[in-house]
Amino acid sequence: MQKIKIGIIGGTGYTGVELLRLLVVHPRAEVALITSRSEAGKQVADLFPSLRGFTDLAFSKPEPSSFNDCDVVFSATPNGIAMTHARELLENGVKLIDLAADFRIKDIDVWSQWYGMEHACPELVEQAVYGLPEVNRATVKTALIVANPGCYPTATTLGFLPLVENGLVDVSDLVADTKSGVTGAGRGASVANLYSEVNDSFKAYAVGGHRHHPEISQNLSAATADKVNLTFVPHLTPMLRGIHATLYANLADPSLPLEHVHELYQQRYQNEPFVDVLPLGSHPDTRSVKTSNMCRIALHKAGGSGKLVVLSVIDNLTKGAAGQAIQNMNIMFDLDESTGLNSPAVQP
Amino acid sequence: MQKIKIGIIGGTGYTGVELLRLLVVHPRAEVALITSRSEAGKQVADLFPSLRGFTDLAFSKPEPSSFNDCDVVFSATPNGIAMTHARELLENGVKLIDLAADFRIKDIDVWSQWYGMEHACPELVEQAVYGLPEVNRATVKTALIVANPGCYPTATTLGFLPLVENGLVDVSDLVADTKSGVTGAGRGASVANLYSEVNDSFKAYAVGGHRHHPEISQNLSAATADKVNLTFVPHLTPMLRGIHATLYANLADPSLPLEHVHELYQQRYQNEPFVDVLPLGSHPDTRSVKTSNMCRIALHKAGGSGKLVVLSVIDNLTKGAAGQAIQNMNIMFDLDESTGLNSPAVQP
Amino acid sequence: MQKIKIGIIGGTGYTGVELLRLLVVHPRAEVALITSRSEAGKQVADLFPSLRGFTDLAFSKPEPSSFNDCDVVFSATPNGIAMTHARELLENGVKLIDLAADFRIKDIDVWSQWYGMEHACPELVEQAVYGLPEVNRATVKTALIVANPGCYPTATTLGFLPLVENGLVDVSDLVADTKSGVTGAGRGASVANLYSEVNDSFKAYAVGGHRHHPEISQNLSAATADKVNLTFVPHLTPMLRGIHATLYANLADPSLPLEHVHELYQQRYQNEPFVDVLPLGSHPDTRSVKTSNMCRIALHKAGGSGKLVVLSVIDNLTKGAAGQAIQNMNIMFDLDESTGLNSPAVQP
Amino acid sequence: MQKIKIGIIGGTGYTGVELLRLLVVHPRAEVALITSRSEAGKQVADLFPSLRGFTDLAFSKPEPSSFNDCDVVFSATPNGIAMTHARELLENGVKLIDLAADFRIKDIDVWSQWYGMEHACPELVEQAVYGLPEVNRATVKTALIVANPGCYPTATTLGFLPLVENGLVDVSDLVADTKSGVTGAGRGASVANLYSEVNDSFKAYAVGGHRHHPEISQNLSAATADKVNLTFVPHLTPMLRGIHATLYANLADPSLPLEHVHELYQQRYQNEPFVDVLPLGSHPDTRSVKTSNMCRIALHKAGGSGKLVVLSVIDNLTKGAAGQAIQNMNIMFDLDESTGLNSPAVQP
Repeated sequence: MQKIKIGIIGGTGYTGVELLRLLVVHPRAEVALITSRSEAGKQVADLFPSLRGFTDLAFSKPEPSSFNDCDVVFSATPNGIAMTHARELLENGVKLIDLAADFRIKDIDVWSQWYGMEHACPELVEQAVYGLPEVNRATVKTALIVANPGCYPTATTLGFLPLVENGLVDVSDLVADTKSGVTGAGRGASVANLYSEVNDSFKAYAVGGHRHHPEISQNLSAATADKVNLTFVPHLTPMLRGIHATLYANLADPSLPLEHVHELYQQRYQNEPFVDVLPLGSHPDTRSVKTSNMCRIALHKAGGSGKLVVLSVIDNLTKGAAGQAIQNMNIMFDLDESTGLNSPAVQP
Repeated sequence: MQKIKIGIIGGTGYTGVELLRLLVVHPRAEVALITSRSEAGKQVADLFPSLRGFTDLAFSKPEPSSFNDCDVVFSATPNGIAMTHARELLENGVKLIDLAADFRIKDIDVWSQWYGMEHACPELVEQAVYGLPEVNRATVKTALIVANPGCYPTATTLGFLPLVENGLVDVSDLVADTKSGVTGAGRGASVANLYSEVNDSFKAYAVGGHRHHPEISQNLSAATADKVNLTFVPHLTPMLRGIHATLYANLADPSLPLEHVHELYQQRYQNEPFVDVLPLGSHPDTRSVKTSNMCRIALHKAGGSGKLVVLSVIDNLTKGAAGQAIQNMNIMFDLDESTGLNSPAVQP
Repeated sequence: MQKIKIGIIGGTGYTGVELLRLLVVHPRAEVALITSRSEAGKQVADLFPSLRGFTDLAFSKPEPSSFNDCDVVFSATPNGIAMTHARELLENGVKLIDLAADFRIKDIDVWSQWYGMEHACPELVEQAVYGLPEVNRATVKTALIVANPGCYPTATTLGFLPLVENGLVDVSDLVADTKSGVTGAGRGASVANLYSEVNDSFKAYAVGGHRHHPEISQNLSAATADKVNLTFVPHLTPMLRGIHATLYANLADPSLPLEHVHELYQQRYQNEPFVDVLPLGSHPDTRSVKTSNMCRIALHKAGGSGKLVVLSVIDNLTKGAAGQAIQNMNIMFDLDESTGLNSPAVQP
Repeated sequence: MQKIKIGIIGGTGYTGVELLRLLVVHPRAEVALITSRSEAGKQVADLFPSLRGFTDLAFSKPEPSSFNDCDVVFSATPNGIAMTHARELLENGVKLIDLAADFRIKDIDVWSQWYGMEHACPELVEQAVYGLPEVNRATVKTALIVANPGCYPTATTLGFLPLVENGLVDVSDLVADTKSGVTGAGRGASVANLYSEVNDSFKAYAVGGHRHHPEISQNLSAATADKVNLTFVPHLTPMLRGIHATLYANLADPSLPLEHVHELYQQRYQNEPFVDVLPLGSHPDTRSVKTSNMCRIALHKAGGSGKLVVLSVIDNLTKGAAGQAIQNMNIMFDLDESTGLNSPAVQP
């Protein structure tokens, strides 16, 4: 059975090591190359001792034609890097899965405004496929560039989607109160993310505006003709992994029974390997998905009113990043979508 | 300078030890008596070694006339206990500050429904004063029974209050997405609150209905003639102390400048020793109030719309319980309101 | 390929759910039965939502002949239960792997003294094999009863073993300063293990005597003719999983180069799939083995003297319990020893 | 009552904010000046919102004569800074308490070797007093420069001292297995101290040699004529504050009853306001001293042998840094030694 030859750009962050954790035991994957400017020459297993015995790779400097022999390249770098590699990769027939944001936003001006730079290949943004398999499975299959969704957008979009697609709620007043573990902030040296700064504390951040806001709005707007107005508030939680999205929407028909909504969610996601609609009355905790590629969703109605509350949890590094990227790879290479992703969450 | 003679009913929980932490160095307080059925006979400092050197008290069995010599009794027991002591205390001229919920809800039927028992002294509920000094300072001053507010209600009410009092928002659609540290769940043996269950995880709970919901609704309804409809969702956060309330409301006039709202908050709370309205653009973290009696509040407008987002943080054991109880005691006994409460938050 | 039919006694604790996490994706395992008195009738995936989609099993009441059809039974109960099942299992040709302590100590009197009960089947203790594959692989292969080692004993024994086997250190003065994550304390309701009790704090416990002391002493004594005297001090660390053993011993020859000792460790463990001797200068953290079956060991000499310091880390639930039990099962059933255990540690 | 006029050099770290937390409510202290190159111009309360309402100070650039009007200066900078200020301060009659290591080691060559720089004022090292009040109270009283002890040295020295002073143990084989919370690593931006790196994990570090080793050896050697040989192994623990030292020593007379040793500790520390010798059988947790200036010590004998195990806990930021510095200031300025330090530990 032939293996997919994989390159990884920038594998020194948490998304990188999560990719490696999953890929080194993926039965059809072969990581051929991993680049890092800062760690070039260093054994991967010296940086991440958890991988001792699983890989002999060393980080290498990214060179112009490094990836020409690869079937697919995962870019696990900060924003703005993948787009500088995209043209060359495509010219050499190498597929690209970008775990950062370079290809997520279709409106180039909006992208530039939020990410503070000019886009290096705007002509490729249009053809890139937003890699949320639950929405775009068919187009991911043939995509040359996959824009892997952000962590908040994954949890929030999957949580709101059946409501929006079916016109059940007033999309002009959606609220997403979201909470993330600290790995979401990345592995860069910073005072703000020191253990001593964030442990035993909780805070909101970027209430005035967060880059995932336009991404979620784009996702939801694609599912309805009505104008979506979303209030999005992210919070930092003292835990390693996990996104918990608490979503609020007003039912168009306040008397609609919750059972009806629940059934609709079950139908929407019944064939999805990585979306689990929980029984009514459930409160998923983030650890129920820790290290797994699953999204678990629960539905509630608040206090007799027409306010619907959706709880949606994922692991930000797995379904929110590396796991979903591999799910997309599996689709692109005609593998069973769950290949290499079929392990239960670690508990506790 | 004469000391206030204090009795504590049930001091073996986290609220109890927080009361003791603050009272043993309060210049006008003398803890004369502390009762506990389960720990009777045990030295307080054996149960809580942090208090070694600060108290020689032992827990004693509660007896009918134990508290007759006290000036005031703090009840730090589970719900349903304080009400069984109230009549006798009052008959003996002893004031009562209940840190549980027995006297918080004015509507006895609502109380019974949420707390699952009959009230032992419904006639005293009416005369009890809800001990939120920022609202009821004058009546607390002369109160014989103070119902000390719950932790969520304190953070949420203080956060919403200026909006509701001034009719600035649509009170028929308020959302309070609240997060609590684990000490809020108490010190009882339970699987659900084991370290191994709640650490490194995050979840919502009681979305279908929580006892603090009617308490908050009562508080807000008292400030407006309009019908309040609140969606209240509590979450459990892996940290020891802290409440973070993220509050959402639609401005009646979406074009109202945030600066205007901010000014109004500053005016409302300008003389409050324990409410701190932060500059615009702030995101208070819960550690900025850890172990202190302060409530810090920040205001945001979300994405150009008329949605107002209020962030309100307290320490659930201090301003959310023991600290506020002592603040009430200070008011009741004509002390400076900050006596014994004037220390900065511990950081980190 | 035929599957091994597995029964689990008492699968509601952390060892139980770790067994299930690993077994539901083990290519040769079929969990046929799982018993629990307290949870009988409940779906396993309702208790542990992480297993939704991986098992349809429900807990059942343990009945006399429940396990007759199994090939092997894992007992993941408190101490004292497995021994009551052992005779019947053996009579029916069912192998037993006990993850508790019933068959670990060969001296029945010592066992009774530490575990506070009479042994139900002392005649079976002798034939039971202590399941530390690095020592007893050959006898595990044919064992009918395997006593799966404790977590502290696994980390400590593997760390000290090459020194003791080779007579390199003074075994009359060994010190094991060991630290455990909180899952080691089990999933029983208790105040002592509440999040609010153990988080953000660190303590030693049972310095006067711990049940794992005689087990480690037995292990080390089996490797030397000299009298072993071990000082063993366990500590509780605010983390979920992990054992870190810091081991101290005086070299018989203080001038022996550390390189020599290191080489000896490498030789001793060169064929071991689950012992990783790190390069000189290393400081393994427990997260480098989190969720994996690996034991990582590093060696140091302290300050020019003849004091050797060995650092040995495992995941208490995996190599320290469920993973090692499965490793033993693999050996007993002639599978590749790593089957189902060959995943990298989760990082972070 | 006149206040002591205080300057703080470098108050942007955790030691700095702990100093401020304690000094802003110290009845005899007035912080007149706080310098920071990086934060000059910024309000202290903007950097540390916990101090809002307690100080109006802004950080200022350190200038040559900034501190001339102060009575005492606390230097809370990295190593190597205080020594560049010392001469000028002394010339102007300003006392200096250095919370870093510049004046701790009497042997200048040893100091240079460990701290990797030349000393700027070796002639002042000799006259500096090592500020462990339990040993040097009398000389602290008249000191012009106080070298405030390190956190590990404080816990370890206080734990070993009565044994060494009384010749009860073999000082040629002392082991200190010590564990620190993460604030001990400081507030500098670094990958190693990110939440995502250190949370839910435990590790030893610097086993080959740590700067606190010569400091502890110096302390213990001063108490005995015999040659001290100490093995010192520090560990990083996922908690904010706290040092737990587990100390091992062989009794010269193995049959010496533990009660005897215990009595000796009680006598040694009976007049010490900040050393608490616990009853036999105790296991102090670090949270029993969290935010307090207390050191709690417990004694054990391990398994019938002559091995003594001492458990010693402090808060690294308080008794291990800022609290002890204020204790020294109180002594230097003839205040009651406990002034401003007399609060119970925060629990939990």
